[in-house]
Amino acid sequence: MSNQLALGLDFGTESVRAVLVDLSGDERAAASMNYPHGQITKTLPGSDQALEPLFAFQHPGDWIASSAQAVRSAMQQAGATADDIVGIGVDFTSCTMLPALRDGTPLCMADGFADRPMAWPKLWKHHGAQKQTDRINEVARQRKEAWLDRYGGIVGLEWFFPKIYETLERDQAVYDAAEVWVEGGDWLVWQLVGGEADDLPRSTCQAGYKAMWSAEDGYPSRDFLAAVDARLADVAETKMPGRMVAPGQQAGGLCAAMAEAFGLREGTPVSAAIIDAHAGVPGVGAGDAGALVMVMGTSSCHMLNAVEQKAAPGVAGIVRDGILPGYYGYETGQAAVGDAFDWIRRMLGVDDFAKLDEAAAAIEPGSDGVTCVDWFNGCRTPLMDGALRGGYTGLSLHHGPAHVYRATLEASAYGVRWIVELLREHGVPVDRFVATGGLPHHNPLLVQIYADVLGAPIEIPNTTQGPALGAAILGAIAAGPDATGFADSAVAVAAMTARITGEHARIVQPDMARHADYETHYTRYRRTAAMLQRDTEG
Amino acid sequence: MSNQLALGLDFGTESVRAVLVDLSGDERAAASMNYPHGQITKTLPGSDQALEPLFAFQHPGDWIASSAQAVRSAMQQAGATADDIVGIGVDFTSCTMLPALRDGTPLCMADGFADRPMAWPKLWKHHGAQKQTDRINEVARQRKEAWLDRYGGIVGLEWFFPKIYETLERDQAVYDAAEVWVEGGDWLVWQLVGGEADDLPRSTCQAGYKAMWSAEDGYPSRDFLAAVDARLADVAETKMPGRMVAPGQQAGGLCAAMAEAFGLREGTPVSAAIIDAHAGVPGVGAGDAGALVMVMGTSSCHMLNAVEQKAAPGVAGIVRDGILPGYYGYETGQAAVGDAFDWIRRMLGVDDFAKLDEAAAAIEPGSDGVTCVDWFNGCRTPLMDGALRGGYTGLSLHHGPAHVYRATLEASAYGVRWIVELLREHGVPVDRFVATGGLPHHNPLLVQIYADVLGAPIEIPNTTQGPALGAAILGAIAAGPDATGFADSAVAVAAMTARITGEHARIVQPDMARHADYETHYTRYRRTAAMLQRDTEG
Repeated sequence: MSNQLALGLDFGTESVRAVLVDLSGDERAAASMNYPHGQITKTLPGSDQALEPLFAFQHPGDWIASSAQAVRSAMQQAGATADDIVGIGVDFTSCTMLPALRDGTPLCMADGFADRPMAWPKLWKHHGAQKQTDRINEVARQRKEAWLDRYGGIVGLEWFFPKIYETLERDQAVYDAAEVWVEGGDWLVWQLVGGEADDLPRSTCQAGYKAMWSAEDGYPSRDFLAAVDARLADVAETKMPGRMVAPGQQAGGLCAAMAEAFGLREGTPVSAAIIDAHAGVPGVGAGDAGALVMVMGTSSCHMLNAVEQKAAPGVAGIVRDGILPGYYGYETGQAAVGDAFDWIRRMLGVDDFAKLDEAAAAIEPGSDGVTCVDWFNGCRTPLMDGALRGGYTGLSLHHGPAHVYRATLEASAYGVRWIVELLREHGVPVDRFVATGGLPHHNPLLVQIYADVLGAPIEIPNTTQGPALGAAILGAIAAGPDATGFADSAVAVAAMTARITGEHARIVQPDMARHADYETHYTRYRRTAAMLQRDTEG
Repeated sequence: MSNQLALGLDFGTESVRAVLVDLSGDERAAASMNYPHGQITKTLPGSDQALEPLFAFQHPGDWIASSAQAVRSAMQQAGATADDIVGIGVDFTSCTMLPALRDGTPLCMADGFADRPMAWPKLWKHHGAQKQTDRINEVARQRKEAWLDRYGGIVGLEWFFPKIYETLERDQAVYDAAEVWVEGGDWLVWQLVGGEADDLPRSTCQAGYKAMWSAEDGYPSRDFLAAVDARLADVAETKMPGRMVAPGQQAGGLCAAMAEAFGLREGTPVSAAIIDAHAGVPGVGAGDAGALVMVMGTSSCHMLNAVEQKAAPGVAGIVRDGILPGYYGYETGQAAVGDAFDWIRRMLGVDDFAKLDEAAAAIEPGSDGVTCVDWFNGCRTPLMDGALRGGYTGLSLHHGPAHVYRATLEASAYGVRWIVELLREHGVPVDRFVATGGLPHHNPLLVQIYADVLGAPIEIPNTTQGPALGAAILGAIAAGPDATGFADSAVAVAAMTARITGEHARIVQPDMARHADYETHYTRYRRTAAMLQRDTEG
């Protein structure tokens, strides 16, 4: 048995996870460490001043300390030595970002800034930038910025530039002092590989999905930024130094200081960072073009690699090298999935989920004429409109909770079908479906309905830790063919997910008679969705 | 104190109620008697052959026996003598109808017919005539029958001609043997006053609302009936003898035989019959034009008297002398009211109604953007379409059961407002609102929402027995001014409802600030309703 191991570092909201996986996909060790400061939402460390309700920060010191500890623990578990590690991959929540100095010091750790909220890393879920997001969208629409198309026409509240602009408006001293604006994942990789700020390895994934960057056009133009606010005009040029690196490409070798801190070998190849959800794509075995990876949880993120870039209206986030090197990564999503099911079960006063599921399963496709449009948290793909609201139609006195619940599950499946049809219509191949995240493991009726509505089998890989494995795989890919023997990323992904895919996965087969039935119901859903969309706009 | 009493006979589905009321509206006695045979839905009396599921009959012998017993009991309670009774009024469920011989014998009591279901009186809720109703509607629409306008464009499953036609198709021997087709209420009055079949006093109310009759045009034409089925061509001419009499007009004096049976005086004036719901109009004090009487229960029936006939599209049932002599009676309705509230509470799994009401009351008008269209049983007025279905829009993850429930109550109020606007737009005055039936007494939040949405006070008379009192009032009106001193029906109604209206009623005042708020919410409701209507039709 080879003792070559890849290290995946999976940085979450409360903790970091380190996994060691060999090149055949066998997980040799895994260790989680909570961040000592957790999420910072009430008061800053060393202060008792209450933060505003929508604020959420993290401590950059935690990222290093907790991950080093997790790695040492995993190495010990696996009985591994530093020489066994062929490469390191890093996935990170996003857009979690921070202001830093050019020497890498997070501004919140620099003299005189520890008590200023805006100096701290803003966690992905920090929602303080609503006003600034609105302004950015308004200006982008007015100027008909070409990059809007790649994001379905809207910039998100949680993204990179809104968070910078919020800092400028709330605390200009922090904005002025910030020499480098950087994603948390990129900052972490920068610390791992060392080097000057101008050489800072920025992930094409984070930049592409959260900072409106593209390989062709770079960041939004100086003119656009100046139109948003004159003080922002040169922010991309002067405060965002570095070079762009794709996940799976080598950002550099582990620097001496970090090799010491983590107990690893100096020079070990480190991949560019990747967004945690996106790491799930290689992590569930989708190393090829055409596999739609449905990460299903509270909301759903559906990701896909393709060989070509095709502008599909309403498809948010098309990024070259965004997920794996050599592919265009497509990101689409549904704003309420698990959330919507929890909500409707609470709404219906249901305690016994199993009984509800059983009753819903006994109802024929189409929920006896009840149609749901599940925009209870707006619509992400394809309409990109957070103001849209959901509804139910076709209700009659003989319907019960199971009809309403089933209609809600069906709406979710119709939403995926809509996205898939849109992609295919615009020449983006979708050949197979992989479901991951928590939901597919807990809700078999839902996955069956997805399969029936799509008319295609759905593979559920045998893991709930796709992102951590994905990070490890990217570490192996970054190590290169000479180190691993993997000719390309597709081969690496196939080999390293062999223990959770294929015969190890659950395959949910579609009932093609039901698929045929769903044709008219899906048409009815689309008609109802169009109606509700017009209603909101009207 | 005058000892002049009016007798009201209120024939229901399970029982008959006799009330004795003096001319100041004081109820002196009331007695209910169940029908010995109750509703006949399983087997015919003396048979063990199962009836079809949608069948529902009554025994005409019960009507006489139970009402005579109830009258004797009430007379005894009141210590009244036969000479005290100035007049008798009769209200009856409708369309409850039967085939009879010209001598008045119900066909089911004639030799050789007791074992034939079609020979028995079909209760209002007998639903065996779906096929025949469809055919009648199809032919009426094809021929563009002018009378369709008076019924909102549709003939109901429970009406007179569908029940005749059902008999013809199911058992032609019964149809052939039937010499007289007659409403149960008319048959009862015929028995009370005696006389030849050609002199049979038929109620303009029942004929107008249930048999497509009008003072101007009579029954549907021979051509129409022949187009439905050649065998029906002469049914109105040959099998529906009699003269038309309005409720409150005297059908005749009590005949000797019935005076004997009931313990009353021969010659006592008897009013023409009236439909039970319609008797509620005078019974709650609406003896004038312009008072919308909302009879609110499982479904709602909204009735109104007007001086003129104005064709208002979608307003079903405009009948001259239909409710009170000298007025055009308008009947409109909502198909699901109490039913809809029960259904949504069950749907939401709510056990604690008081808590739900409290939570719903705390929500502002408009239910925070949740809109309901309450067509859970189709839409009666104004769209007259049983195939329409209900829905909810504007739903978001932060909404709870109380939003959905309040939206359902608001939908009901918007439905009334729509009807009122339609009437007023077409020149039918609506000056005040009276709510009766079970719901207004049990659901104060609902009545408050109605008042706020309408921007007008709603009077809830202090009675749950409006129809029985209404029947008594019609008895007094039929007795004439010389007997009672009442110059006209409006005076009679006002005097005899003085104990339940005015200071005795509950008046729910509108909150005019909320009424102003409801303007936009009502507009949103109408837009949503139009959308769901198009969706069903499309």
